[in-house]
Amino acid sequence: MQIIDGKRIAAEIKAEIAATVREVIAAGGRPPHLVGLLVGHDGGSESYMASKTAVCEQCGFQSSLIRKDVNISQEELIKTIHALNDDDGVDGFIVQLPLPKHIDEQAVIEAIDYHKDVDGFHPVNVGRMAIGLPCFRPATPSGVMMLLERCGIETRGKHCVILGRSNIVGKPLANMLMQKASPGNCTVTVCHSATPNIKDLTLQADILIAAMGSPEFVKEDMVKEGAVVIDVGTTRVEDATRARGWRLCGDVDFDRVAPHCSHITPVPGGVGPMTIVSLMHNTLLAAMGKVYKKQ
Amino acid sequence: MQIIDGKRIAAEIKAEIAATVREVIAAGGRPPHLVGLLVGHDGGSESYMASKTAVCEQCGFQSSLIRKDVNISQEELIKTIHALNDDDGVDGFIVQLPLPKHIDEQAVIEAIDYHKDVDGFHPVNVGRMAIGLPCFRPATPSGVMMLLERCGIETRGKHCVILGRSNIVGKPLANMLMQKASPGNCTVTVCHSATPNIKDLTLQADILIAAMGSPEFVKEDMVKEGAVVIDVGTTRVEDATRARGWRLCGDVDFDRVAPHCSHITPVPGGVGPMTIVSLMHNTLLAAMGKVYKKQ
Repeated sequence: MQIIDGKRIAAEIKAEIAATVREVIAAGGRPPHLVGLLVGHDGGSESYMASKTAVCEQCGFQSSLIRKDVNISQEELIKTIHALNDDDGVDGFIVQLPLPKHIDEQAVIEAIDYHKDVDGFHPVNVGRMAIGLPCFRPATPSGVMMLLERCGIETRGKHCVILGRSNIVGKPLANMLMQKASPGNCTVTVCHSATPNIKDLTLQADILIAAMGSPEFVKEDMVKEGAVVIDVGTTRVEDATRARGWRLCGDVDFDRVAPHCSHITPVPGGVGPMTIVSLMHNTLLAAMGKVYKKQ
Repeated sequence: MQIIDGKRIAAEIKAEIAATVREVIAAGGRPPHLVGLLVGHDGGSESYMASKTAVCEQCGFQSSLIRKDVNISQEELIKTIHALNDDDGVDGFIVQLPLPKHIDEQAVIEAIDYHKDVDGFHPVNVGRMAIGLPCFRPATPSGVMMLLERCGIETRGKHCVILGRSNIVGKPLANMLMQKASPGNCTVTVCHSATPNIKDLTLQADILIAAMGSPEFVKEDMVKEGAVVIDVGTTRVEDATRARGWRLCGDVDFDRVAPHCSHITPVPGGVGPMTIVSLMHNTLLAAMGKVYKKQ
């Protein structure tokens, strides 16, 4: 049984990205430039943005943070987005979600030029991913794909069972893993809140991906011997033994499930560290014109 | 066992569309206008276009056919598309595929204004479908959804196994059927050429959708008693007993599978007649501004 070390793999990829950036600069280019747009002062968003800034530095990227007041109108926010779309000095940008309730998130996402949509949430990128065309892939599922690839896990012809059908994890993973590609070429099953017999399906999984946000939902008796288990869950649960009073809990009962797996990701330290790295990877691709040609 | 009569259901929907069009006209509106763009003289495309024109008439639509020479340049073709995008008198248009080899089909599809993309092939429509947002759904899978709905087939919590992962049938059906919607809310499994144990999976299907283009692939021993079987296959096979020398053959061994089903679609006369009706439905929605607000 191998515990997949997301931290180590993420660090490797960051180092590779930084090396590429140094080459670009040595050849007379400028560093990739990622802009984050933050509306209001949500605690989670603030700390996520701070991590992004730190990782940008590790990768040798330029990063900028644009803060807008929580009361900004949708029209003003979209104006800001249009300015970023038009700014040749910006390779990619992200609008930190969630947005305040008076703003239509989908309208904001669709205002982003998909050539700079390094979060991969614009319908053009979602659609191109489903069709199997080059696109910016959303960060978390893209991180899962990178883990599978870096760990040398064979996916072709394997039965991948995905628990959860969110637009940011379950659905894009299903779309990526069923493609005639590597990693990919899986038989894919998607289970969700309306699935009556989840255990019957998880027991068939060669690769089981849990992305429901339901702490320790996947028990020992739900996993086939030798399966690959990827845990995308990150729920904060109370934990009086920690100074901060909580810990991150995955969707898998790790201690009991792990002995039965060929590979398993821990929480934290599995998929989590890959998410920001995927975003950096997208930004590098954007800067180098590797997904879409530079306009 | 009920044989799903696609012809009858298609006729019903056409009559409903025609009734709506009469209401629109009675209220002072103009009929929906669908334009077909045909490059060259492919036999299959010619006859499909002729059917579309005939069905437009049955629905009370205005229809136009624009023919372009097989040697048209991509640039010229895209100019024609931009003119249709800009023409307020055109509600929807389709570019008949396949296109001549010197033309990049994807570039042509992406040149279509997605507000008028009634074939549902533009990445914005594909992406919005995956996300679960209003969009133009591609004709054949949308026809399957209409059949399920019109036949009152419960889909919630059912295990739907899809054979085939094409961009025009298998993948969009998977994306639609996993949505939290009705019809929808299925546990979805997608099998394809890299799936080693298809029979193990088809035997679990409450709803089995065959869309591989592999004549009579689905045999009696691959189907669970009482399953719903939807056959999207339409392969021409030689048949000396027919004057034209061929017949259409589905992906299901109908005669032997049918007795085991609760519902089954025949070929021809099942999914086939629904495809053009779905296109008409999309065109009506486009004309009425029901998917996207009129610009």
